[in-house]
Amino acid sequence: MAYGLLNGKRGIISGALDEKSIAWKVALKAKEEGATFTLTNAPIAMRMGAIKQLAEQCEAEIIPADATSVEDLENLFTKSQEVLGGKVDFVLHSIGMSPNIRKGKSYTDLNYDWYKQSIDISAMSFHKMMQTAYKLDAINEWGSIVALTYMAAQRTFSFYGDMADAKAALESIARSFGYHYGKFRNVRVNTVSQSPTPTTAGGGIGGFEQFYDYAEKMAPLGNATADQCADYVVTLFSDLTRMVTMQNLFHDGGFSMTGVSEDVMALINKS
Amino acid sequence: MAYGLLNGKRGIISGALDEKSIAWKVALKAKEEGATFTLTNAPIAMRMGAIKQLAEQCEAEIIPADATSVEDLENLFTKSQEVLGGKVDFVLHSIGMSPNIRKGKSYTDLNYDWYKQSIDISAMSFHKMMQTAYKLDAINEWGSIVALTYMAAQRTFSFYGDMADAKAALESIARSFGYHYGKFRNVRVNTVSQSPTPTTAGGGIGGFEQFYDYAEKMAPLGNATADQCADYVVTLFSDLTRMVTMQNLFHDGGFSMTGVSEDVMALINKS
Amino acid sequence: MAYGLLNGKRGIISGALDEKSIAWKVALKAKEEGATFTLTNAPIAMRMGAIKQLAEQCEAEIIPADATSVEDLENLFTKSQEVLGGKVDFVLHSIGMSPNIRKGKSYTDLNYDWYKQSIDISAMSFHKMMQTAYKLDAINEWGSIVALTYMAAQRTFSFYGDMADAKAALESIARSFGYHYGKFRNVRVNTVSQSPTPTTAGGGIGGFEQFYDYAEKMAPLGNATADQCADYVVTLFSDLTRMVTMQNLFHDGGFSMTGVSEDVMALINKS
Amino acid sequence: MAYGLLNGKRGIISGALDEKSIAWKVALKAKEEGATFTLTNAPIAMRMGAIKQLAEQCEAEIIPADATSVEDLENLFTKSQEVLGGKVDFVLHSIGMSPNIRKGKSYTDLNYDWYKQSIDISAMSFHKMMQTAYKLDAINEWGSIVALTYMAAQRTFSFYGDMADAKAALESIARSFGYHYGKFRNVRVNTVSQSPTPTTAGGGIGGFEQFYDYAEKMAPLGNATADQCADYVVTLFSDLTRMVTMQNLFHDGGFSMTGVSEDVMALINKS
Repeated sequence: MAYGLLNGKRGIISGALDEKSIAWKVALKAKEEGATFTLTNAPIAMRMGAIKQLAEQCEAEIIPADATSVEDLENLFTKSQEVLGGKVDFVLHSIGMSPNIRKGKSYTDLNYDWYKQSIDISAMSFHKMMQTAYKLDAINEWGSIVALTYMAAQRTFSFYGDMADAKAALESIARSFGYHYGKFRNVRVNTVSQSPTPTTAGGGIGGFEQFYDYAEKMAPLGNATADQCADYVVTLFSDLTRMVTMQNLFHDGGFSMTGVSEDVMALINKS
Repeated sequence: MAYGLLNGKRGIISGALDEKSIAWKVALKAKEEGATFTLTNAPIAMRMGAIKQLAEQCEAEIIPADATSVEDLENLFTKSQEVLGGKVDFVLHSIGMSPNIRKGKSYTDLNYDWYKQSIDISAMSFHKMMQTAYKLDAINEWGSIVALTYMAAQRTFSFYGDMADAKAALESIARSFGYHYGKFRNVRVNTVSQSPTPTTAGGGIGGFEQFYDYAEKMAPLGNATADQCADYVVTLFSDLTRMVTMQNLFHDGGFSMTGVSEDVMALINKS
Repeated sequence: MAYGLLNGKRGIISGALDEKSIAWKVALKAKEEGATFTLTNAPIAMRMGAIKQLAEQCEAEIIPADATSVEDLENLFTKSQEVLGGKVDFVLHSIGMSPNIRKGKSYTDLNYDWYKQSIDISAMSFHKMMQTAYKLDAINEWGSIVALTYMAAQRTFSFYGDMADAKAALESIARSFGYHYGKFRNVRVNTVSQSPTPTTAGGGIGGFEQFYDYAEKMAPLGNATADQCADYVVTLFSDLTRMVTMQNLFHDGGFSMTGVSEDVMALINKS
Repeated sequence: MAYGLLNGKRGIISGALDEKSIAWKVALKAKEEGATFTLTNAPIAMRMGAIKQLAEQCEAEIIPADATSVEDLENLFTKSQEVLGGKVDFVLHSIGMSPNIRKGKSYTDLNYDWYKQSIDISAMSFHKMMQTAYKLDAINEWGSIVALTYMAAQRTFSFYGDMADAKAALESIARSFGYHYGKFRNVRVNTVSQSPTPTTAGGGIGGFEQFYDYAEKMAPLGNATADQCADYVVTLFSDLTRMVTMQNLFHDGGFSMTGVSEDVMALINKS
């Protein structure tokens, strides 16, 4: 069902790799709700991805950008404003990558060059996006910026490795920049902390399936899907949530607030 | 602007005293968004209140209920289902009162009978509402329950007295019952932690105006209004937030995440 | 090993039922560290308990007090000052009881008279203790007050029932009263959130053993014992922690900050 | 007063620049409490600092180390074990620096090379320290690691700039590594979140004095001093706190849990 929540709004959506991506779902949903937007991803990611198909479906232009490059981001915001015909109302940051996790490095045996890359790609890119937009004054008053994160920023999940630290920095950036962007232009900045989601990126982590099942049994409502996440993000882009800012918002079926569920205890007792 | 977010949904809204009330604004907004609902308040509050005018405006029936009385709440849910023609999809709990605050008792000189009343009216009433609904199975699957709270549950504001403890209990009840209602019927339960709001109830607290101004200067977006709170609550009642549960959600223009603002520091330096 | 951390300090220790009690261990440890103190418990609890043996071991006087009775608490503080020869330096609150849990009532089928008792005994008693001490000015400057709590105040553990709400209120009381007692007399107030501990009270909860094993597998350091808790509480009573106040301090081997451990995932995978 | 809390313990203390430094006070206190330890700091910092005087006072050897260099850290842990005659029992990380703050860059106009330095020096150095110690198995079972942090990791203080993000990463590293070090060797890892402290480093930030006064008026016990911080850190190094791990511990006179104080409201009202 569509409500027109984003009628007339312009946006930028990053991180749509393939149809499992949360960003992909956000794009479809934003389109349904009346928005126009540009799509962006790293040049490399785009070669693998099916993003052109999404662009056609959404009548959206693709503007490649390496999110660690301020130049690319300047181009992204400048071009997006041209293409969309005005300042931007919403931005989705859905960007994260840890070479250490990809290459199976344990948290106690990290490669520090890769650690820096994790931070640069997964956290600093968010600051760069916002600083670029801020300097170009590319976002309309009462605009909304959302970044996707994970609860490993609050508690340790051993398989999440250095991405935990990157997400902690990301959430801090949301608060810190949210303060300034709020004062400057009444723009709000929040992070959405989503259930484990079987995306191509997330699903690649060792032991993902087992953890997914565990989270499903822990959360009273089960794991939130990528589609449901898109629904939620759309409310955060809408005019109905204008005073929510600097928050980390759990979208996880209650996992974050459950100490232990009866289902998990039953599993434990069986073993 | 209306989106039809609550088209076809039935609800119960408590706590509308007069047109300054957040609950009043939620009622108007829910009506606009397509919901039908009943209104409820304590018999005493209703005599003072202008609730009949609201009921007419919303074409809503009023069902008086003392929220500390399980019998009254049983009647509320039973009658509401009759009147609305089916199970309920959303409930707003906007009930709170501290005799100690009203009568100017300091937190270090509390009257314990009044303390019990604060807890009973402001926190236990929420449990009673949910337990009653749960037993009557009066809420539809994927229904949404919201209670209004205040950040004094996390940090001390001396003027908030024993309501801080009542709100801490209220938020705990949201988590605890949210777990069970999630498993039982996929019903979600959240609290919204709102900016200081110049309602008839809130405004009565000593020093309210000064604190309101301080919060206005602290929050990057300023204080959230009752109207904006209603907007936000409507998103939480809608189908777009189905997987958000057991959360305490700050709706406060960023106050909760601001250590100190430049505006407040400037004020301090002046004095 | 003893360090003399509490040399010359006077205190009141509540809640020592038998030798499994955390309060019992705190008493032994406080004695070892040089403190003199009185012991207190509810008249009923004392009949069952072996508290006299503890009193002899610690050369401590027992002053029975129902912690829900302000009169009893006045007597406790007055007598304690007489017996100990001066104002008190530390107080341990280790009091909690839920008739609903004892009688196997589910959280969705609570008896509200019992709920009120849970709150009165487990949370309000802490306020009454402090308000009584405050009015009698019975605590020395830089004194330290500690109450024992459990993480169910932050996240839901279904078996913990209405004690979750009581503990949430208790922790709020610590913050709220901590603010005032800090200003008034530089007295600090904190709560210690301890691992599941096989005390006579805690161990009685259904499914305790299974949960204890689960927590043991989740916490990187395993569950903290009652003896270790006593060690920690002693540091909080000492002069080395004077500026720690209004905090909830987890003493749980890291459970609270662990999302999921490898040991728990291994268990889950087995089943 | 000395208790012998660290009798027989060996440690490494970083970050003592001059006698205002918290690390300096920790060194003096650790000596008093019976520990032997090595001191370390960056070669540059040592030229400016009066660290030799401290070394003499504490009979401690100085081992220079750039905390961003794994080689230097390997040397630090290897040499420290030689000098001290065995594995290490405690480590203090008191290292942080933001070129952006030093050079007056606003948070919305950051230089990203400097941002990377802030993260590298202030956060990654902590990971490098622990990973080095872990690989060398240089810390005894039940050892204790503490890093100093600031509440800007949780809430925004505009003057704290990119150090907020660095501290958020630092606290995440404490949790993440704490999990692994706990499993591996029962070593605990915590951060202490200290009041604003007029050290040579901290005091250099613009507007520090005004903020210090504000915090003094907000915290019920006032700001915690560097000496008091040293007292607290010693308890965390002692055997009495073995089960506290992965925690961020506020040592701030209650500032963190105070929404607003009466003193601050009085100031505001005056202006």
